[in-house]
Amino acid sequence: MSGTAKSDSGRQILGILGGMGPEATADFFRKVVDATPAAKDQDHIHILVNCDPSIPDRTENILGRGPDPLPALIEAGKRLAAAGATVGAIPCMTAHHWMDALRAALPFPFLSAFEELGRRIRSDYPQAKRIGVLATTGSIRAGLYEKHLTDWRIHFPDEEAQTRFVMEAVYGKHGIKAGNRGDEPRRLLREAGNRLVARGADLLVAGCTEIPLALKPGDFEVPVLDPMQVLARAAVDYCRGGRA
Amino acid sequence: MSGTAKSDSGRQILGILGGMGPEATADFFRKVVDATPAAKDQDHIHILVNCDPSIPDRTENILGRGPDPLPALIEAGKRLAAAGATVGAIPCMTAHHWMDALRAALPFPFLSAFEELGRRIRSDYPQAKRIGVLATTGSIRAGLYEKHLTDWRIHFPDEEAQTRFVMEAVYGKHGIKAGNRGDEPRRLLREAGNRLVARGADLLVAGCTEIPLALKPGDFEVPVLDPMQVLARAAVDYCRGGRA
Repeated sequence: MSGTAKSDSGRQILGILGGMGPEATADFFRKVVDATPAAKDQDHIHILVNCDPSIPDRTENILGRGPDPLPALIEAGKRLAAAGATVGAIPCMTAHHWMDALRAALPFPFLSAFEELGRRIRSDYPQAKRIGVLATTGSIRAGLYEKHLTDWRIHFPDEEAQTRFVMEAVYGKHGIKAGNRGDEPRRLLREAGNRLVARGADLLVAGCTEIPLALKPGDFEVPVLDPMQVLARAAVDYCRGGRA
Repeated sequence: MSGTAKSDSGRQILGILGGMGPEATADFFRKVVDATPAAKDQDHIHILVNCDPSIPDRTENILGRGPDPLPALIEAGKRLAAAGATVGAIPCMTAHHWMDALRAALPFPFLSAFEELGRRIRSDYPQAKRIGVLATTGSIRAGLYEKHLTDWRIHFPDEEAQTRFVMEAVYGKHGIKAGNRGDEPRRLLREAGNRLVARGADLLVAGCTEIPLALKPGDFEVPVLDPMQVLARAAVDYCRGGRA
Protein backbone atom coordinates (compact mmCIF):
# COMPACT_ATOMS: atom_id res chain seq x y z
CA MET A 1 0.00 0.00 0.00
CA SER A 2 1.70 3.17 -1.15
CA GLY A 3 -0.62 5.81 0.31
CA THR A 4 -4.08 6.61 1.57
CA ALA A 5 -5.20 9.43 -0.72
CA LYS A 6 -8.88 10.26 -0.43
CA SER A 7 -11.30 11.92 -2.80
CA ASP A 8 -12.15 15.62 -2.55
CA SER A 9 -15.07 14.75 -0.31
CA GLY A 10 -12.83 12.70 1.98
CA ARG A 11 -14.44 9.44 0.89
CA GLN A 12 -12.53 6.57 -0.63
CA ILE A 13 -13.35 5.64 -4.23
CA LEU A 14 -12.65 2.05 -5.24
CA GLY A 15 -11.27 1.69 -8.78
CA ILE A 16 -11.83 -1.74 -10.29
CA LEU A 17 -9.33 -2.40 -13.07
CA GLY A 18 -11.27 -4.99 -15.04
CA GLY A 19 -12.09 -6.55 -18.37
CA MET A 20 -10.03 -9.71 -17.74
CA GLY A 21 -12.62 -10.93 -18.51
CA PRO A 22 -15.82 -8.88 -18.43
CA GLU A 23 -17.72 -11.80 -16.85
CA ALA A 24 -15.36 -11.90 -13.91
CA THR A 25 -15.47 -8.11 -13.62
CA ALA A 26 -19.28 -8.04 -13.47
CA ASP A 27 -19.12 -10.82 -10.90
CA PHE A 28 -16.56 -8.95 -8.77
CA PHE A 29 -18.62 -5.76 -8.90
CA ARG A 30 -21.59 -7.78 -7.63
CA LYS A 31 -19.44 -9.29 -4.87
CA VAL A 32 -18.37 -5.83 -3.69
CA VAL A 33 -21.98 -4.62 -3.59
CA ASP A 34 -23.10 -7.79 -1.78
CA ALA A 35 -20.21 -7.55 0.70
CA THR A 36 -21.41 -4.11 1.82
CA PRO A 37 -23.63 -3.96 4.90
CA ALA A 38 -26.27 -1.57 3.56
CA ALA A 39 -29.90 -0.73 4.24
CA LYS A 40 -30.05 2.08 1.67
CA ASP A 41 -28.14 3.35 -1.38
CA GLN A 42 -26.14 5.87 0.62
CA ASP A 43 -24.57 3.13 2.81
CA HIS A 44 -22.68 1.76 -0.21
CA ILE A 45 -19.16 2.68 -1.25
CA HIS A 46 -18.32 4.73 -4.34
CA ILE A 47 -17.05 2.40 -7.07
CA LEU A 48 -15.49 3.07 -10.45
CA VAL A 49 -15.02 0.27 -12.97
CA ASN A 50 -12.89 0.27 -16.08
CA CYS A 51 -13.82 -2.89 -17.94
CA ASP A 52 -11.43 -2.91 -20.89
CA PRO A 53 -11.60 -6.23 -22.71
CA SER A 54 -8.78 -5.27 -25.10
CA ILE A 55 -6.07 -5.78 -22.47
CA PRO A 56 -3.81 -8.49 -23.94
CA ASP A 57 -4.22 -11.99 -22.51
CA ARG A 58 -2.10 -12.37 -19.36
CA THR A 59 -1.64 -16.12 -19.61
CA GLU A 60 -0.53 -15.93 -23.24
CA ASN A 61 2.14 -13.40 -22.34
CA ILE A 62 3.46 -15.34 -19.35
CA LEU A 63 3.67 -18.43 -21.56
CA GLY A 64 5.72 -16.38 -24.04
CA ARG A 65 3.11 -16.33 -26.79
CA GLY A 66 1.58 -12.86 -26.70
CA PRO A 67 2.17 -9.14 -26.17
CA ASP A 68 2.98 -7.58 -22.79
CA PRO A 69 -0.28 -6.41 -21.16
CA LEU A 70 1.48 -3.94 -18.84
CA PRO A 71 1.10 -0.82 -21.04
CA ALA A 72 -2.64 -1.50 -21.42
CA LEU A 73 -2.96 -2.17 -17.67
CA ILE A 74 -1.30 1.16 -16.86
CA GLU A 75 -3.47 2.96 -19.41
CA ALA A 76 -6.58 1.36 -17.84
CA GLY A 77 -5.40 2.44 -14.39
CA LYS A 78 -4.86 5.99 -15.61
CA ARG A 79 -8.49 6.16 -16.73
CA LEU A 80 -9.51 5.21 -13.19
CA ALA A 81 -7.15 7.83 -11.77
CA ALA A 82 -8.62 10.47 -14.09
CA ALA A 83 -12.08 9.60 -12.80
CA GLY A 84 -10.93 9.93 -9.19
CA ALA A 85 -10.11 6.44 -7.89
CA THR A 86 -8.28 6.47 -4.54
CA VAL A 87 -7.63 2.72 -4.17
CA GLY A 88 -7.48 -0.04 -6.78
CA ALA A 89 -8.40 -3.70 -7.08
CA ILE A 90 -7.90 -6.12 -9.98
CA PRO A 91 -10.41 -8.95 -10.52
CA CYS A 92 -7.88 -11.13 -12.33
CA MET A 93 -5.40 -13.25 -10.39
CA THR A 94 -2.97 -13.63 -13.29
CA ALA A 95 -2.77 -9.85 -13.75
CA HIS A 96 -1.28 -9.67 -10.25
CA HIS A 97 1.97 -10.71 -11.93
CA TRP A 98 2.26 -7.00 -12.86
CA MET A 99 1.13 -5.67 -9.46
CA ASP A 100 4.50 -4.17 -8.44
CA ALA A 101 4.82 -2.33 -11.77
CA LEU A 102 1.23 -1.07 -11.53
CA ARG A 103 1.72 0.16 -7.98
CA ALA A 104 4.82 2.03 -9.11
CA ALA A 105 3.13 3.55 -12.18
CA LEU A 106 -0.18 4.71 -10.72
CA PRO A 107 -1.02 7.47 -8.24
CA PHE A 108 -3.29 5.37 -6.00
CA PRO A 109 -2.54 2.23 -3.93
CA PHE A 110 -3.77 -1.24 -4.92
CA LEU A 111 -5.12 -4.01 -2.72
CA SER A 112 -3.61 -7.35 -3.72
CA ALA A 113 -5.82 -10.44 -3.88
CA PHE A 114 -2.82 -12.60 -2.90
CA GLU A 115 -1.97 -10.53 0.16
CA GLU A 116 -5.60 -10.51 1.25
CA LEU A 117 -5.87 -14.26 0.68
CA GLY A 118 -2.88 -14.98 2.91
CA ARG A 119 -4.31 -12.69 5.57
CA ARG A 120 -7.66 -14.50 5.46
CA ILE A 121 -6.25 -18.03 5.58
CA ARG A 122 -4.11 -17.06 8.57
CA SER A 123 -7.09 -15.65 10.46
CA ASP A 124 -9.91 -18.03 9.49
CA TYR A 125 -8.12 -21.34 8.74
CA PRO A 126 -5.14 -21.41 11.11
CA GLN A 127 -4.99 -25.23 10.87
CA ALA A 128 -4.57 -25.29 7.08
CA LYS A 129 -1.24 -26.72 5.94
CA ARG A 130 -1.69 -27.74 2.31
CA ILE A 131 -3.44 -25.50 -0.19
CA GLY A 132 -4.72 -26.89 -3.47
CA VAL A 133 -4.93 -24.34 -6.26
CA LEU A 134 -7.26 -24.37 -9.26
CA ALA A 135 -5.88 -21.66 -11.53
CA THR A 136 -4.93 -20.92 -15.11
CA THR A 137 -1.57 -22.19 -16.32
CA GLY A 138 -0.35 -18.61 -16.74
CA SER A 139 -0.86 -17.67 -13.12
CA ILE A 140 0.69 -20.97 -12.00
CA ARG A 141 3.76 -20.47 -14.20
CA ALA A 142 4.05 -16.89 -12.95
CA GLY A 143 4.81 -18.38 -9.53
CA LEU A 144 2.34 -16.06 -7.78
CA TYR A 145 1.06 -18.63 -5.29
CA GLU A 146 4.49 -19.78 -4.07
CA LYS A 147 5.64 -16.16 -3.96
CA HIS A 148 2.76 -14.87 -1.85
CA LEU A 149 1.60 -17.89 0.17
CA THR A 150 4.95 -18.86 1.69
CA ASP A 151 3.48 -20.17 4.95
CA TRP A 152 1.76 -23.13 3.27
CA ARG A 153 2.58 -26.06 1.03
CA ILE A 154 1.01 -25.35 -2.37
CA HIS A 155 -0.38 -28.12 -4.61
CA PHE A 156 -1.27 -27.70 -8.27
CA PRO A 157 -2.90 -30.28 -10.56
CA ASP A 158 -0.43 -32.38 -12.52
CA GLU A 159 0.16 -31.31 -16.10
CA GLU A 160 -2.44 -33.62 -17.62
CA ALA A 161 -5.21 -32.56 -15.18
CA GLN A 162 -4.26 -28.91 -15.61
CA THR A 163 -4.69 -29.12 -19.38
CA ARG A 164 -7.63 -31.49 -19.65
CA PHE A 165 -9.69 -30.17 -16.75
CA VAL A 166 -8.77 -26.69 -15.55
CA MET A 167 -7.77 -24.97 -18.80
CA GLU A 168 -10.55 -26.71 -20.70
CA ALA A 169 -13.11 -25.50 -18.13
CA VAL A 170 -11.94 -21.89 -18.49
CA TYR A 171 -10.85 -21.53 -22.12
CA GLY A 172 -12.54 -24.50 -23.84
CA LYS A 173 -15.24 -24.27 -26.49
CA HIS A 174 -17.84 -25.01 -23.79
CA GLY A 175 -15.86 -23.16 -21.14
CA ILE A 176 -16.59 -20.25 -18.83
CA LYS A 177 -14.93 -17.54 -20.94
CA ALA A 178 -17.30 -18.50 -23.78
CA GLY A 179 -20.20 -17.66 -21.46
CA ASN A 180 -20.88 -21.21 -20.28
CA ARG A 181 -21.69 -21.69 -16.60
CA GLY A 182 -23.35 -25.05 -16.99
CA ASP A 183 -22.50 -28.57 -15.95
CA GLU A 184 -19.50 -29.17 -18.20
CA PRO A 185 -16.99 -26.68 -16.71
CA ARG A 186 -18.20 -27.63 -13.23
CA ARG A 187 -17.61 -31.34 -13.90
CA LEU A 188 -14.09 -30.63 -15.14
CA LEU A 189 -13.21 -28.45 -12.14
CA ARG A 190 -14.55 -30.99 -9.64
CA GLU A 191 -12.40 -33.65 -11.23
CA ALA A 192 -9.30 -31.48 -10.87
CA GLY A 193 -10.14 -30.35 -7.32
CA ASN A 194 -10.92 -33.83 -6.01
CA ARG A 195 -7.53 -35.01 -7.22
CA LEU A 196 -5.89 -32.27 -5.13
CA VAL A 197 -7.92 -33.24 -2.07
CA ALA A 198 -6.90 -36.87 -2.60
CA ARG A 199 -3.28 -35.69 -2.53
CA GLY A 200 -3.80 -34.06 0.88
CA ALA A 201 -5.00 -30.50 0.25
CA ASP A 202 -7.03 -29.33 3.26
CA LEU A 203 -8.16 -26.10 1.61
CA LEU A 204 -8.84 -25.26 -2.04
CA VAL A 205 -8.37 -21.88 -3.68
CA ALA A 206 -10.54 -21.13 -6.71
CA GLY A 207 -7.69 -19.08 -8.01
CA CYS A 208 -8.78 -17.89 -11.43
CA THR A 209 -11.55 -15.32 -11.28
CA GLU A 210 -13.69 -17.38 -13.67
CA ILE A 211 -13.55 -20.62 -11.72
CA PRO A 212 -16.00 -19.82 -8.89
CA LEU A 213 -18.59 -18.91 -11.54
CA ALA A 214 -19.01 -22.60 -12.36
CA LEU A 215 -18.74 -24.09 -8.84
CA LYS A 216 -21.49 -24.59 -6.28
CA PRO A 217 -21.43 -24.79 -2.48
CA GLY A 218 -20.62 -28.31 -1.32
CA ASP A 219 -18.75 -29.28 -4.48
CA PHE A 220 -15.74 -30.36 -2.37
CA GLU A 221 -15.13 -31.98 1.02
CA VAL A 222 -12.73 -29.21 2.07
CA PRO A 223 -13.36 -25.45 2.28
CA VAL A 224 -13.01 -23.49 -0.96
CA LEU A 225 -11.82 -19.90 -0.82
CA ASP A 226 -12.67 -17.50 -3.61
CA PRO A 227 -9.91 -14.85 -3.65
CA MET A 228 -12.28 -12.42 -5.37
CA GLN A 229 -14.73 -12.75 -2.50
CA VAL A 230 -11.85 -12.17 -0.09
CA LEU A 231 -10.68 -9.14 -2.11
CA ALA A 232 -14.21 -7.71 -2.32
CA ARG A 233 -14.61 -7.78 1.44
CA ALA A 234 -11.16 -6.24 1.94
CA ALA A 235 -12.02 -3.43 -0.50
CA VAL A 236 -15.27 -2.66 1.28
CA ASP A 237 -13.52 -2.62 4.67
CA TYR A 238 -10.79 -0.35 3.31
CA CYS A 239 -13.23 2.12 1.74
CA ARG A 240 -15.43 2.25 4.81
CA GLY A 241 -12.43 3.03 6.97
CA GLY A 242 -12.39 -0.35 8.69
CA ARG A 243 -8.62 -0.65 8.30
CA ALA A 244 -5.60 1.45 7.50
CA MET B 1 -28.25 11.63 -29.71
CA SER B 2 -26.01 14.67 -29.88
CA GLY B 3 -22.91 13.18 -31.45
CA THR B 4 -20.93 10.05 -32.16
CA ALA B 5 -17.54 10.83 -30.65
CA LYS B 6 -15.20 7.87 -30.44
CA SER B 7 -12.25 7.09 -28.24
CA ASP B 8 -8.67 7.61 -29.38
CA SER B 9 -8.58 4.06 -30.67
CA GLY B 10 -11.78 4.58 -32.64
CA ARG B 11 -13.73 2.30 -30.33
CA GLN B 12 -16.81 3.38 -28.42
CA ILE B 13 -16.60 3.37 -24.64
CA LEU B 14 -19.89 2.95 -22.77
CA GLY B 15 -20.15 5.07 -19.62
CA ILE B 16 -22.63 3.76 -17.08
CA LEU B 17 -23.76 6.53 -14.75
CA GLY B 18 -24.85 4.44 -11.78
CA GLY B 19 -25.23 4.12 -8.07
CA MET B 20 -29.03 4.57 -8.09
CA GLY B 21 -28.83 2.07 -6.53
CA PRO B 22 -25.67 -0.02 -6.60
CA GLU B 23 -27.72 -3.25 -6.86
CA ALA B 24 -29.38 -2.05 -10.03
CA THR B 25 -26.03 -0.84 -11.40
CA ALA B 26 -24.36 -4.21 -10.84
CA ASP B 27 -27.37 -5.84 -12.47
CA PHE B 28 -27.23 -3.53 -15.50
CA PHE B 29 -23.49 -4.12 -15.92
CA ARG B 30 -24.21 -7.87 -15.94
CA LYS B 31 -27.00 -7.34 -18.52
CA VAL B 32 -24.62 -5.45 -20.83
CA VAL B 33 -22.02 -8.22 -20.58
CA ASP B 34 -24.67 -10.91 -21.15
CA ALA B 35 -26.17 -9.00 -24.10
CA THR B 36 -22.83 -9.12 -25.93
CA PRO B 37 -22.33 -11.93 -28.43
CA ALA B 38 -18.83 -12.97 -27.40
CA ALA B 39 -16.64 -16.06 -27.58
CA LYS B 40 -13.61 -14.41 -25.97
CA ASP B 41 -12.76 -11.36 -23.84
CA GLN B 42 -11.77 -9.25 -26.84
CA ASP B 43 -15.28 -9.51 -28.38
CA HIS B 44 -16.74 -7.48 -25.50
CA ILE B 45 -17.26 -3.72 -25.48
CA HIS B 46 -15.24 -1.32 -23.33
CA ILE B 47 -17.32 -0.26 -20.33
CA LEU B 48 -16.78 2.34 -17.65
CA VAL B 49 -18.96 2.47 -14.56
CA ASN B 50 -19.30 5.25 -12.05
CA CYS B 51 -21.34 3.81 -9.21
CA ASP B 52 -21.83 6.78 -6.89
CA PRO B 53 -24.33 5.93 -4.16
CA SER B 54 -24.24 9.46 -2.73
CA ILE B 55 -26.37 10.90 -5.57
CA PRO B 56 -29.45 12.31 -3.80
CA ASP B 57 -32.64 10.26 -4.04
CA ARG B 58 -34.47 11.06 -7.27
CA THR B 59 -37.94 10.17 -6.03
CA GLU B 60 -37.56 12.27 -2.89
CA ASN B 61 -36.66 15.31 -4.98
CA ILE B 62 -39.50 14.87 -7.45
CA LEU B 63 -41.90 14.57 -4.54
CA GLY B 64 -40.50 17.87 -3.19
CA ARG B 65 -38.82 16.39 -0.14
CA GLY B 66 -35.10 16.28 -0.95
CA PRO B 67 -32.18 18.03 -2.67
CA ASP B 68 -31.81 18.32 -6.43
CA PRO B 69 -29.68 15.40 -7.70
CA LEU B 70 -28.70 17.19 -10.93
CA PRO B 71 -25.37 18.64 -9.71
CA ALA B 72 -24.28 15.20 -8.46
CA LEU B 73 -25.45 13.57 -11.71
CA ILE B 74 -23.39 16.03 -13.76
CA GLU B 75 -20.38 15.52 -11.49
CA ALA B 76 -20.75 11.74 -11.93
CA GLY B 77 -20.96 12.18 -15.70
CA LYS B 78 -17.82 14.33 -15.69
CA ARG B 79 -15.88 11.52 -14.00
CA LEU B 80 -16.97 9.22 -16.85
CA ALA B 81 -15.94 11.85 -19.40
CA ALA B 82 -12.54 12.22 -17.71
CA ALA B 83 -12.05 8.46 -18.02
CA GLY B 84 -12.94 8.54 -21.72
CA ALA B 85 -16.62 7.60 -22.06
CA THR B 86 -18.02 8.24 -25.55
CA VAL B 87 -21.68 7.31 -24.92
CA GLY B 88 -23.69 7.20 -21.70
CA ALA B 89 -26.45 5.11 -20.16
CA ILE B 90 -28.25 5.51 -16.82
CA PRO B 91 -29.53 2.41 -15.01
CA CYS B 92 -32.24 4.36 -13.15
CA MET B 93 -35.54 5.22 -14.82
CA THR B 94 -36.36 8.06 -12.44
CA ALA B 95 -33.04 9.78 -13.15
CA HIS B 96 -34.19 10.12 -16.78
CA HIS B 97 -36.19 13.11 -15.51
CA TRP B 98 -32.87 15.01 -15.79
CA MET B 99 -31.84 13.50 -19.14
CA ASP B 100 -32.18 16.71 -21.18
CA ALA B 101 -30.06 18.65 -18.67
CA LEU B 102 -27.45 15.88 -18.59
CA ARG B 103 -27.24 15.73 -22.36
CA ALA B 104 -26.73 19.48 -22.44
CA ALA B 105 -24.08 19.46 -19.70
CA LEU B 106 -21.90 16.54 -20.77
CA PRO B 107 -19.58 16.09 -23.75
CA PHE B 108 -20.86 12.65 -24.79
CA PRO B 109 -24.34 11.56 -25.96
CA PHE B 110 -26.68 9.49 -23.78
CA LEU B 111 -28.94 6.62 -24.78
CA SER B 112 -32.36 7.00 -23.13
CA ALA B 113 -34.11 3.97 -21.66
CA PHE B 114 -37.49 5.53 -22.51
CA GLU B 115 -36.61 6.15 -26.14
CA GLU B 116 -35.22 2.62 -26.48
CA LEU B 117 -38.31 1.17 -24.79
CA GLY B 118 -40.65 2.89 -27.25
CA ARG B 119 -38.53 1.67 -30.14
CA ARG B 120 -38.63 -1.92 -28.86
CA ILE B 121 -42.40 -1.99 -28.21
CA ARG B 122 -43.03 -0.63 -31.70
CA SER B 123 -40.84 -3.30 -33.33
CA ASP B 124 -41.56 -6.38 -31.18
CA TYR B 125 -45.10 -5.80 -29.85
CA PRO B 126 -46.91 -3.88 -32.61
CA GLN B 127 -50.29 -5.08 -31.28
CA ALA B 128 -49.79 -3.62 -27.80
CA LYS B 129 -52.27 -0.88 -26.91
CA ARG B 130 -52.30 -0.59 -23.14
CA ILE B 131 -49.11 -0.57 -21.14
CA GLY B 132 -49.15 -1.26 -17.41
CA VAL B 133 -46.29 0.31 -15.50
CA LEU B 134 -44.74 -0.88 -12.24
CA ALA B 135 -42.51 2.01 -11.17
CA THR B 136 -41.58 4.16 -8.20
CA THR B 137 -43.91 7.00 -7.33
CA GLY B 138 -41.23 9.53 -8.23
CA SER B 139 -40.86 8.35 -11.80
CA ILE B 140 -44.65 8.17 -12.18
CA ARG B 141 -45.13 11.72 -10.84
CA ALA B 142 -42.32 12.94 -13.12
CA GLY B 143 -44.61 12.05 -16.03
CA LEU B 144 -41.84 10.24 -17.88
CA TYR B 145 -44.02 7.42 -19.22
CA GLU B 146 -46.75 9.65 -20.68
CA LYS B 147 -44.07 11.99 -22.06
CA HIS B 148 -42.09 9.31 -23.87
CA LEU B 149 -44.63 6.57 -24.66
CA THR B 150 -47.21 8.71 -26.41
CA ASP B 151 -48.37 5.99 -28.82
CA TRP B 152 -49.91 3.88 -26.06
CA ARG B 153 -52.41 4.17 -23.24
CA ILE B 154 -50.46 4.05 -19.95
CA HIS B 155 -51.89 2.45 -16.78
CA PHE B 156 -50.46 2.87 -13.29
CA PRO B 157 -51.56 1.15 -10.07
CA ASP B 158 -54.11 3.12 -8.07
CA GLU B 159 -52.73 5.07 -5.15
CA GLU B 160 -53.36 2.37 -2.56
CA ALA B 161 -51.70 -0.39 -4.64
CA GLN B 162 -48.81 1.93 -5.48
CA THR B 163 -48.08 2.57 -1.81
CA ARG B 164 -48.86 -0.83 -0.32
CA PHE B 165 -47.36 -3.00 -3.05
CA VAL B 166 -44.92 -1.24 -5.37
CA MET B 167 -43.20 1.22 -3.03
CA GLU B 168 -43.18 -1.32 -0.21
CA ALA B 169 -41.50 -3.88 -2.50
CA VAL B 170 -38.75 -1.40 -3.44
CA TYR B 171 -38.22 0.76 -0.35
CA GLY B 172 -39.76 -1.33 2.45
CA LYS B 173 -37.90 -2.86 5.36
CA HIS B 174 -37.95 -6.23 3.56
CA GLY B 175 -37.67 -4.56 0.14
CA ILE B 176 -35.24 -4.79 -2.74
CA LYS B 177 -33.13 -1.72 -1.88
CA ALA B 178 -32.43 -3.34 1.51
CA GLY B 179 -30.89 -6.27 -0.36
CA ASN B 180 -33.94 -8.52 -0.28
CA ARG B 181 -34.71 -10.50 -3.44
CA GLY B 182 -36.88 -13.09 -1.78
CA ASP B 183 -40.54 -13.92 -1.88
CA GLU B 184 -41.96 -10.85 -0.15
CA PRO B 185 -41.12 -8.15 -2.74
CA ARG B 186 -42.11 -10.59 -5.49
CA ARG B 187 -45.50 -11.25 -3.90
CA LEU B 188 -46.15 -7.51 -3.60
CA LEU B 189 -45.19 -6.80 -7.20
CA ARG B 190 -47.31 -9.66 -8.56
CA GLU B 191 -50.31 -8.29 -6.69
CA ALA B 192 -49.81 -4.84 -8.25
CA GLY B 193 -49.12 -6.20 -11.76
CA ASN B 194 -52.09 -8.56 -11.80
CA ARG B 195 -54.38 -5.67 -10.98
CA LEU B 196 -53.07 -3.80 -14.03
CA VAL B 197 -53.62 -6.87 -16.23
CA ALA B 198 -57.17 -7.16 -14.87
CA ARG B 199 -57.71 -3.55 -15.96
CA GLY B 200 -56.69 -4.39 -19.54
CA ALA B 201 -52.91 -3.94 -19.77
CA ASP B 202 -51.58 -6.18 -22.56
CA LEU B 203 -47.93 -5.49 -21.76
CA LEU B 204 -46.20 -4.72 -18.46
CA VAL B 205 -43.12 -2.57 -18.01
CA ALA B 206 -40.94 -3.33 -14.98
CA GLY B 207 -40.13 0.35 -14.89
CA CYS B 208 -37.96 0.81 -11.84
CA THR B 209 -34.52 -0.75 -12.21
CA GLU B 210 -34.95 -2.67 -8.95
CA ILE B 211 -38.25 -4.33 -9.85
CA PRO B 212 -37.01 -7.03 -12.28
CA LEU B 213 -34.56 -8.20 -9.60
CA ALA B 214 -37.50 -9.69 -7.67
CA LEU B 215 -39.58 -11.05 -10.57
CA LYS B 216 -39.33 -14.41 -12.31
CA PRO B 217 -40.25 -15.53 -15.83
CA GLY B 218 -43.93 -16.45 -16.05
CA ASP B 219 -44.99 -14.25 -13.13
CA PHE B 220 -47.64 -12.61 -15.35
CA GLU B 221 -49.97 -13.67 -18.16
CA VAL B 222 -48.78 -10.82 -20.42
CA PRO B 223 -45.24 -10.04 -21.62
CA VAL B 224 -43.05 -8.05 -19.21
CA LEU B 225 -40.43 -5.72 -20.63
CA ASP B 226 -37.42 -4.76 -18.55
CA PRO B 227 -36.28 -1.34 -19.80
CA MET B 228 -32.77 -2.03 -18.46
CA GLN B 229 -32.54 -5.16 -20.59
CA VAL B 230 -33.73 -3.10 -23.57
CA LEU B 231 -31.18 -0.36 -22.79
CA ALA B 232 -28.35 -2.88 -22.35
CA ARG B 233 -28.95 -4.37 -25.79
CA ALA B 234 -29.19 -0.90 -27.35
CA ALA B 235 -25.89 0.10 -25.72
CA VAL B 236 -24.12 -3.01 -27.00
CA ASP B 237 -25.49 -2.45 -30.53
CA TYR B 238 -24.42 1.19 -30.42
CA CYS B 239 -20.89 0.42 -29.23
CA ARG B 240 -20.41 -2.38 -31.72
CA GLY B 241 -21.41 -0.05 -34.54
CA GLY B 242 -24.74 -1.78 -35.17
CA ARG B 243 -26.57 1.52 -35.40
CA ALA B 244 -25.88 5.21 -35.85
